[in-house]
Amino acid sequence: MPDPVLISEVGPRDGLQSIDRVMPLEAKIDWITAEAAAGVREIEVGSFVNYRAMPQMADTAALVEAACRIDGLAVAVLVPNLTGARAALKSGAHKLSLPLSASETHSQRNVNRSHAQVLEEIAQIRAAVDAVPEETRPHFEVGIATAFGCSIEGAVPEAKVVQLAEAALAAGAAEVGLSDTTGYANPAMIRARIRAVRAAVGDKLTGVHLHNTRGLGLANALAALDEGIRTLDASLGGLGGCPAAPGASGNIVTEDLAFMLDAMGFETGIDLDRLARTREILARALPGEPLYGFLADAGVPLGHGSQTQDAA
Amino acid sequence: MPDPVLISEVGPRDGLQSIDRVMPLEAKIDWITAEAAAGVREIEVGSFVNYRAMPQMADTAALVEAACRIDGLAVAVLVPNLTGARAALKSGAHKLSLPLSASETHSQRNVNRSHAQVLEEIAQIRAAVDAVPEETRPHFEVGIATAFGCSIEGAVPEAKVVQLAEAALAAGAAEVGLSDTTGYANPAMIRARIRAVRAAVGDKLTGVHLHNTRGLGLANALAALDEGIRTLDASLGGLGGCPAAPGASGNIVTEDLAFMLDAMGFETGIDLDRLARTREILARALPGEPLYGFLADAGVPLGHGSQTQDAA
Repeated sequence: MPDPVLISEVGPRDGLQSIDRVMPLEAKIDWITAEAAAGVREIEVGSFVNYRAMPQMADTAALVEAACRIDGLAVAVLVPNLTGARAALKSGAHKLSLPLSASETHSQRNVNRSHAQVLEEIAQIRAAVDAVPEETRPHFEVGIATAFGCSIEGAVPEAKVVQLAEAALAAGAAEVGLSDTTGYANPAMIRARIRAVRAAVGDKLTGVHLHNTRGLGLANALAALDEGIRTLDASLGGLGGCPAAPGASGNIVTEDLAFMLDAMGFETGIDLDRLARTREILARALPGEPLYGFLADAGVPLGHGSQTQDAA
Repeated sequence: MPDPVLISEVGPRDGLQSIDRVMPLEAKIDWITAEAAAGVREIEVGSFVNYRAMPQMADTAALVEAACRIDGLAVAVLVPNLTGARAALKSGAHKLSLPLSASETHSQRNVNRSHAQVLEEIAQIRAAVDAVPEETRPHFEVGIATAFGCSIEGAVPEAKVVQLAEAALAAGAAEVGLSDTTGYANPAMIRARIRAVRAAVGDKLTGVHLHNTRGLGLANALAALDEGIRTLDASLGGLGGCPAAPGASGNIVTEDLAFMLDAMGFETGIDLDRLARTREILARALPGEPLYGFLADAGVPLGHGSQTQDAA
């Protein structure tokens, strides 16, 4: 029986927000169109932030409009606050994701709000979402940022992460995810925190967002899969970072994650060769920008796909 | 309770054999001295191969002699055959490791021998090892190379790996390891093959040797740890490859593996900062050679070492 895993591509948001250059709208559309054609089923295309502070995201509404025309693609956006959520609702995005940072210092730097203020805004966003007719109402989730540690505050207590996950759901998020914004996680911590959050909120914890800052990204992904997580964010070429978290660097690499899942017998719906070729769009649009990952160079193993006896 | 893991550094052998330049003996001695001082307890310092075919390894006897003067360091060498084993015994190395490739094509290209010939030579090496007085007798192990697939033959049946592990032990190896020579493994395969070999030979399977060709190295290491493996090969800066296996590239990175283990609460005996600084020796001795890994740039997380509540 196939065990499906959803890879949510976050490169057009998390990747491009970490690069000063502004990628032209047409290149973004080419990118997401090519990834969707390769079988990627969900893409976070941008962020409804203040475009003066982050001009890379200024075309998010136009990009959502284009992305929503791609058949079968779930179009996600990041919203930092109620203003962003209102813009997202207007755009027609299918999914709104709001960061609630476990580190209050990071929360202040990232969205200029305390925990209490973010939780209040979650409730307001819930109300705004519920005002949308049911047939076009988007999904609203909260990602617990810096859930495994903060490069400003240092260690983040597990109990704080659990408490904020509960509070976000109580305030109106439909589900929560855990984000290793800073690349601080390790597999033991991933397992322990997923278990702790699951013990409190059950299957309302659905996904993880991992960075590869210390090379542990896919090991952490494996730990999350072992705990039953079936939605993982990743970024083509590993682009990524967080402007508000010093030292944060790239996300786990979509191509390498897709290969790992495929090799393990999970079903991602992704054509690895087509996915690897979408890197060319990035390379052309962002000349000189380092792209990470191994699969694109190494290719799949000889005989890959014929070893069903080793499937998970 | 600390759960110790042995990281066996293979860079001076696996790394340097994959680089055309010959590292001067003094630089090799500096390297292994610095790594031992950082807490690395076992180093594979070289290979007793034909030095005309592989001049990078021509000074292995002298390097063993120097390495054996480092207090508390287990000095390992690779031996391709009986001739190499005799040289290794003469050198005083503490551990001899012989590759038995599950892919017979790779075996022919790598050591110019069939499975039957290698097994016969294992028995002859056993006899030669046993002729050494017990107090100085080295450990003799066999690594099942291409145990997860071959870049010449493609898929390698699990049953073949099990059969060769049993045969190597029957012929006289004290223990066996599984080597992903080609970077073909995935975590599901790692788990399945460790279980299958363990079912046949029990705790005579002790270690794994992993490459990071497709970026899955640390995820594979995690899978092996989950199965109870407590000896892992790794290479400083990820140097590595196999001249006889097309497309094979670097080993898992010692620094990143040591960080992962440390963060998970395993005991490696390694000082991460000192280990990261040993990269400077490589960078000086091999100018321009790409060094891999993330920890050296990213550093340990703020507060690392104080999060015992998240230990494995």
